[in-house]
Amino acid sequence: MDRTRLEAFSDGVFAVAITLLALNLAVAAPGHVSLLHQLGTHWPSFVAYLISFFVIGIIWVNHHVLVKSIKVVDRMLLFLNLVLLLFVVVIPVATGIVADYLSSTAKFAGLNGTDTQVAMALYNAVFLGMSAGFGCIFEWTLHGDRVLQPVPREQHWAARIRFVGGASFYVLGIVVAFVNAVASFVLMGLVAVYYIVERTPARPQTPGEHGAADSPGGESPLI
Amino acid sequence: MDRTRLEAFSDGVFAVAITLLALNLAVAAPGHVSLLHQLGTHWPSFVAYLISFFVIGIIWVNHHVLVKSIKVVDRMLLFLNLVLLLFVVVIPVATGIVADYLSSTAKFAGLNGTDTQVAMALYNAVFLGMSAGFGCIFEWTLHGDRVLQPVPREQHWAARIRFVGGASFYVLGIVVAFVNAVASFVLMGLVAVYYIVERTPARPQTPGEHGAADSPGGESPLI
Amino acid sequence: MDRTRLEAFSDGVFAVAITLLALNLAVAAPGHVSLLHQLGTHWPSFVAYLISFFVIGIIWVNHHVLVKSIKVVDRMLLFLNLVLLLFVVVIPVATGIVADYLSSTAKFAGLNGTDTQVAMALYNAVFLGMSAGFGCIFEWTLHGDRVLQPVPREQHWAARIRFVGGASFYVLGIVVAFVNAVASFVLMGLVAVYYIVERTPARPQTPGEHGAADSPGGESPLI
Amino acid sequence: MDRTRLEAFSDGVFAVAITLLALNLAVAAPGHVSLLHQLGTHWPSFVAYLISFFVIGIIWVNHHVLVKSIKVVDRMLLFLNLVLLLFVVVIPVATGIVADYLSSTAKFAGLNGTDTQVAMALYNAVFLGMSAGFGCIFEWTLHGDRVLQPVPREQHWAARIRFVGGASFYVLGIVVAFVNAVASFVLMGLVAVYYIVERTPARPQTPGEHGAADSPGGESPLI
Repeated sequence: MDRTRLEAFSDGVFAVAITLLALNLAVAAPGHVSLLHQLGTHWPSFVAYLISFFVIGIIWVNHHVLVKSIKVVDRMLLFLNLVLLLFVVVIPVATGIVADYLSSTAKFAGLNGTDTQVAMALYNAVFLGMSAGFGCIFEWTLHGDRVLQPVPREQHWAARIRFVGGASFYVLGIVVAFVNAVASFVLMGLVAVYYIVERTPARPQTPGEHGAADSPGGESPLI
Repeated sequence: MDRTRLEAFSDGVFAVAITLLALNLAVAAPGHVSLLHQLGTHWPSFVAYLISFFVIGIIWVNHHVLVKSIKVVDRMLLFLNLVLLLFVVVIPVATGIVADYLSSTAKFAGLNGTDTQVAMALYNAVFLGMSAGFGCIFEWTLHGDRVLQPVPREQHWAARIRFVGGASFYVLGIVVAFVNAVASFVLMGLVAVYYIVERTPARPQTPGEHGAADSPGGESPLI
Repeated sequence: MDRTRLEAFSDGVFAVAITLLALNLAVAAPGHVSLLHQLGTHWPSFVAYLISFFVIGIIWVNHHVLVKSIKVVDRMLLFLNLVLLLFVVVIPVATGIVADYLSSTAKFAGLNGTDTQVAMALYNAVFLGMSAGFGCIFEWTLHGDRVLQPVPREQHWAARIRFVGGASFYVLGIVVAFVNAVASFVLMGLVAVYYIVERTPARPQTPGEHGAADSPGGESPLI
Repeated sequence: MDRTRLEAFSDGVFAVAITLLALNLAVAAPGHVSLLHQLGTHWPSFVAYLISFFVIGIIWVNHHVLVKSIKVVDRMLLFLNLVLLLFVVVIPVATGIVADYLSSTAKFAGLNGTDTQVAMALYNAVFLGMSAGFGCIFEWTLHGDRVLQPVPREQHWAARIRFVGGASFYVLGIVVAFVNAVASFVLMGLVAVYYIVERTPARPQTPGEHGAADSPGGESPLI
């Protein structure tokens, strides 16, 4: 198994999942309620769409960076990659559920009704699963002679702690969901913004790789 | 991050989005109204399908032309590319909304009911967002030493004005939508036809690149 | 524009369209009618699925064979390719419509009710459009110095006639649909079988290309 | 036809099919029954999702291993590959049907109602069809000079028997479904786990290929 097809398959899954996200933005057929009113009450759909879109986008970037340095593709890596994708493809569904429950809470049980809180916890749990899947792939790269620019052994624990630091926000999000679903939503948005602005901790940050592969010509990262 | 996987992921998203477009052409199950009647009242679905299909097709062509000349892939470019795709994947949904509201206006509020106008404005807004996303990528290519055949500095403003000229039709479309939704629809169709026939302004038109990469053997563009 | 990305995008569209086909096989939720009964009355869904699946599969093979010999990718080719894909992505919808109307005719108007006939004519028309799109790409390859192994000028008309011969079955299918919808269905099935068994007329059949590129080692085609 | 595009198209189909699987996890809109209750009664959806996801994942891995050793791509191989994909794309639909019928049996006919048994048999039958399609491709690789590391002639029957051994579990599953649908479900889960842990019998296991292509550097398989 060469790396190319692992990337092609994963890219396909990421691309389909990110496109299906938008289907959650569909509105009811004409004749029921005014379109403007629908768009107004559907704000959680738009927020959830933005968060999920950028989280999938970020994990795609990180997946790419990690995979391109891999020298050995064994069955364990393929299995771990499937575990990651297992959670990625659930994101559109989880996004739809959280958007539905947050949008309709006014009518049924308020923004913090139990169902809304469960939906929000579920949404966080799917992202946590995705993080865990990615973390397993990262852990796999730490052992043996599997990547081109391995993280030095003495930095393993630092790298793991940085990674767990990021993923722990989703654990926090699950807890917060049962206190205040909207607060959990805000937290997830902040995590997404943080990941866009920052280089993710999961990435091996060897100076050579950064200066060379990513930005030839002394280009500095713009964000 | 190398260019290949940026292209593969973007191609995947473009391909899924353009295929999902056709799902808006589905008709009601048998037994309700005659199929011929349904096809007759669904003309806005077909027009919207054609417009969206070719607009996505054109932006895919332009995306390809722009990306293939890129030397440096940094995180900013990946983020800008995600912003472009954020709007691309919304096109199938926006197309479905505008088709639904234009198709059913006879029954509810006339072709210029408020909801129809809002739907049409939304449809223009999504295309405007896509243009803006593409414009940001184009702007990114103007700076630093990032592309193989950069637009000369003295032509930057001319290039930007040509680009804004194209995108401004969608701003006009939003305004026109609130006067006459069908007129806005016609305008969008004309913009699509224009983009098919003309080489888009967003493309750096250096003579060498045109004669060489696109049409070896002295082949002149046929449209 | 290089050929690779034209192929990648087209492959993506073919892959999504062929996968969406299967969604037409979904049955009603439990509790309405027995599953066995549903599967029995849904035989047109299965037949339509098989026909559409293999027709898309065949056109994908032919697309590949034609595109791999192309030396020049110009905007005209990209536009013609979009026209081909415009019809390809409509196939899942047309397949669903024809399956729905044939499945439910027992209840409403008989297997030859007007709506069933219109649905069947539509299904043929979409395939005719796809053939026409492919024919335009084939015509494009006949002119200029665009392909590696061009069809000799004196064979152009023979090649066109062979191509029109194949596509004309869909014209016949439209006519037959208004006489007997099921007969038109049978005809489409036969055309699909014919295309699977035969090498399609649209393909430039130079002896060297066949013996070399397709089957090294003296391998003879098995079907 | 070169191997690359066969892989690209197949990867696209696998990726779309595996992503569509997750759509079966969608829950009813808010206001009907509590979300927690829905998630509780939907356990068959989750189990079916896991089984189908890993079976598609495994067949993708095996497809890759088999295809990468192919030297000759003829029309027969393309047709056999289409037959494999014909069953792969039906998996999301079959998964949805079995999940629906197992989830709702409490309300209608018990976990072993006829419809539930038919749904489970159908689910097994689709996997059997996929296995048969893959088996045909494998059989194709046994003849002529078609693969880089052919299975020696004296091992053909052993390889076939190993393959039939695996596929026969789905035949058993069809039989068991009519005795006890849940037992058949458990059996399918065990088969999936077996395939994840074991290298599949369908794979030509020449020692050289294993040690070299899959795991350079003396890496031993971890699962």
